[in-house]
Amino acid sequence: MNRSRTAATPAPGSDGAAAFAALMAHQRSSEALGQIAGRLGWDQETVMPRGASEQRSVETAALEEVLHARRSDPRVGEWLARAEAPDAAGAANLREIARQHERAARVPAALASELARVISLAQGKWAAARAAEDTGAFLPVLSEVVALRREEAAAIARGGDLYDTLLQDYEPGTSAAAIETLFAELRPGLRALRDRALGAGKAPPVLKGRFAPEQQRALAQLIAERFGYDMARGRIDIAVHPFSSGSGDDVRITTRVDPQDPFNCIYSTVHEVGHAAYEQNVSPAYALSAIGHGASMGVHESQSRLYENQLARSRPFTAWLHAEMSRRFGDLGMDEAEFYGAVNRLQRGFIRTEADEVQYNLHVMLRFELERSLIDGSLAVGDLEEAWCVRFHEDFGHAVDRPSNGMLQDVHWSVGLFGYFPTYTLGNVYAGCLNAALRRDLPELDTALAQGDPSPATAWLGEKVQRHGALRGPAETIAHATGSAPTAAPLLSYLDDKFSGIYGL
Amino acid sequence: MNRSRTAATPAPGSDGAAAFAALMAHQRSSEALGQIAGRLGWDQETVMPRGASEQRSVETAALEEVLHARRSDPRVGEWLARAEAPDAAGAANLREIARQHERAARVPAALASELARVISLAQGKWAAARAAEDTGAFLPVLSEVVALRREEAAAIARGGDLYDTLLQDYEPGTSAAAIETLFAELRPGLRALRDRALGAGKAPPVLKGRFAPEQQRALAQLIAERFGYDMARGRIDIAVHPFSSGSGDDVRITTRVDPQDPFNCIYSTVHEVGHAAYEQNVSPAYALSAIGHGASMGVHESQSRLYENQLARSRPFTAWLHAEMSRRFGDLGMDEAEFYGAVNRLQRGFIRTEADEVQYNLHVMLRFELERSLIDGSLAVGDLEEAWCVRFHEDFGHAVDRPSNGMLQDVHWSVGLFGYFPTYTLGNVYAGCLNAALRRDLPELDTALAQGDPSPATAWLGEKVQRHGALRGPAETIAHATGSAPTAAPLLSYLDDKFSGIYGL
Repeated sequence: MNRSRTAATPAPGSDGAAAFAALMAHQRSSEALGQIAGRLGWDQETVMPRGASEQRSVETAALEEVLHARRSDPRVGEWLARAEAPDAAGAANLREIARQHERAARVPAALASELARVISLAQGKWAAARAAEDTGAFLPVLSEVVALRREEAAAIARGGDLYDTLLQDYEPGTSAAAIETLFAELRPGLRALRDRALGAGKAPPVLKGRFAPEQQRALAQLIAERFGYDMARGRIDIAVHPFSSGSGDDVRITTRVDPQDPFNCIYSTVHEVGHAAYEQNVSPAYALSAIGHGASMGVHESQSRLYENQLARSRPFTAWLHAEMSRRFGDLGMDEAEFYGAVNRLQRGFIRTEADEVQYNLHVMLRFELERSLIDGSLAVGDLEEAWCVRFHEDFGHAVDRPSNGMLQDVHWSVGLFGYFPTYTLGNVYAGCLNAALRRDLPELDTALAQGDPSPATAWLGEKVQRHGALRGPAETIAHATGSAPTAAPLLSYLDDKFSGIYGL
Repeated sequence: MNRSRTAATPAPGSDGAAAFAALMAHQRSSEALGQIAGRLGWDQETVMPRGASEQRSVETAALEEVLHARRSDPRVGEWLARAEAPDAAGAANLREIARQHERAARVPAALASELARVISLAQGKWAAARAAEDTGAFLPVLSEVVALRREEAAAIARGGDLYDTLLQDYEPGTSAAAIETLFAELRPGLRALRDRALGAGKAPPVLKGRFAPEQQRALAQLIAERFGYDMARGRIDIAVHPFSSGSGDDVRITTRVDPQDPFNCIYSTVHEVGHAAYEQNVSPAYALSAIGHGASMGVHESQSRLYENQLARSRPFTAWLHAEMSRRFGDLGMDEAEFYGAVNRLQRGFIRTEADEVQYNLHVMLRFELERSLIDGSLAVGDLEEAWCVRFHEDFGHAVDRPSNGMLQDVHWSVGLFGYFPTYTLGNVYAGCLNAALRRDLPELDTALAQGDPSPATAWLGEKVQRHGALRGPAETIAHATGSAPTAAPLLSYLDDKFSGIYGL
């Protein structure tokens, strides 16, 4: 009997076909339960009564336990050993299921549960430490998290590199070495561009005024729909942190509204629409399967950043937005060209999530280097803050003034997310590649964008990237869409063009 | 070793104690997953995007499959055989878990899944048939549902009575014979009272006007909080059908708003608050255990009906409501006494959910008799409509004019709920008993109610009924609270007094 996974279509009724069918049915239920877990998360951040959090943590843990048991179920291993995929999508499903199963099966249950316990504790300690500007209060529990994640990575890696192993959770197929090469290409260019722009002696204006929250939300929804977000299969709510959750026919986003800063609501919404449209546009043939969602965190971020930056912050789209906002909110106190500058303004700061397009990736690189050293053991948790401050000063030219503007600003490490940060910059790199390719294919795009219509670009992305879900690995997904392997060059060149124009360099 | 379940506290570390602990831990996760299932139902009726229903049905089925597997898990049977309860609450937990396990283990998986499939189909066919006024379009699938529920009941009953078996799902410990006795006591009194009132030649006025939806919701929330609904552990949303869902610290209710009829919103809300307060007030010591929620559907309904009718529709409370509504909405066009009549107006009609306090139970009795005959096989589905119309004419004195006003009005049978209807009237009977007891214990209650303050009564119910959850069976729960076994007499006497007063009989 042929046991190759990518062999010709197995005869229906064969053992290989039966094992494949059993595996897909099992996975379908797991995916459905995973969707429920996502919905619980949405509920928690939007509508959950405030007194319900303790009970909710028990509910969430019970569902996670079910999901873990399903992933590590020994029958999955047996089915995987016998299953024969009928086609490429089937083979991709087997690849994804195998990866998740191997990971779950290798981590001892006691370790997984200890990690969950420490993480839920650590998140609270992080929040308290950040509020109190007290790094020392966070370090002991962070040490525990680092130690447990290293132990977990070691269990999975079986002698392989620990950080590379952690990366696979977020960006399958990549390695720290590959990321390092990419980042080395990027950093000098970004620093130089930032320094040139901020030294140019000319700065775009800042938008001032009060913008009624209900009107902001109405405009954000209009823009969301123009970017292809299907409101019949989604909804927009308010939450402290904007996010997107769910796959297929139930993909919800949240946004936030600052009466003084309408760009916050608009660009948070477009960003989340990039994530949500990706999930909504995956082929229905892959629904509730292991490839029925985005290919990786990096490819996901490429969609959200491309929607947000290359499209919604483009010169022609902001011209339309300037007219639309003037109509809705009255005189904005600046012309179309100044408005474009205001939307894309660079500024010195401390916080990653508030950073501009040029400096954002410098924030990410700093975290990548530090967390890699934490995981390989070359940096002790006790030395982390100093290392952060040194690196920050080097890249940004000013000193961190307090812990909440430094290493306490992000939640990620407290919840054990090591290996996640670099996917933000991978996303920007991928977005640069995709933008170059779609510009090549769509010479008339700017005309549509100037009418507030990004649909030629979103249709291109739907066809080239989104509908394929996780059929291919992340880098292969980008290469399939653009025709060549991703590099940092298109992003750098796009940023150079854009900010040279805005700052008259 | 002593294997009795209610024996003296087992030594910690004994096999009986270990089995009990394992069972409770297993149940705790099951209860947590059950809470998630409830939350999904809430989501579906309130916030779910309309395009998500097909995907949602797969998600719900996956979770139900997990819950069923946990209930029927052979380990539960083994633990039950060995477990020794440390106290009365532990013994009650064993009783509840054993009942659910036995039921789940006796129903073959193929039958359970066929039933789920047919029911989801039947609900759609029922809705279509009701919209088209076409009973014939519903009968074939109803026959299938009845046949499958009979098959299921037979598998559980192992020779026992089928309808009694189905009753246990909603009202453990009761029997059709006991219900029949109770109903026989009730029916003549209700019919006579209704005929006297409607023949009195004097009818209370009808409230007319337009009442702003936002103001109705604000008033409903105020009243909900006065009835003890803890908004920090709940929330009120709008849905087509009012309902309450969840237990413990996350108990949500929905209501509806009709601009012409503020009583709809107010009394739907108070009704659901009765259910929700019961769940919120169960002792935290029972949280996420098999006794950590209401004792039965009947006891549940006793709380909602008592809150709604004996308290919120009482003369003193409606006096407060009259003043409050006049203040909020302006002149109501009637005085306090007329308002009391308007709130409690009897009228001829067809629809159970719109029926007044007197006639409501006649609707229920009709359904009880018919469904009992369907399940024991003495009534064929093909003869159901005729039987309905005959019985209806006998009890209500007018003829059913169309199927949606007759046997197509309720969703229950389409989703296989046979044995559920009588719990509505059991609830009213229990409410009558509880009302008599709390009136006896709280002679000053009317003074508080006249100030819009039902808290003496809700505190009494919290202490006597709600905090105990399912520690005792339904009838025992009522007997514990009132001091005697439930009978229909207090309900009849309460209705007689109330409507004799309103109609000047």
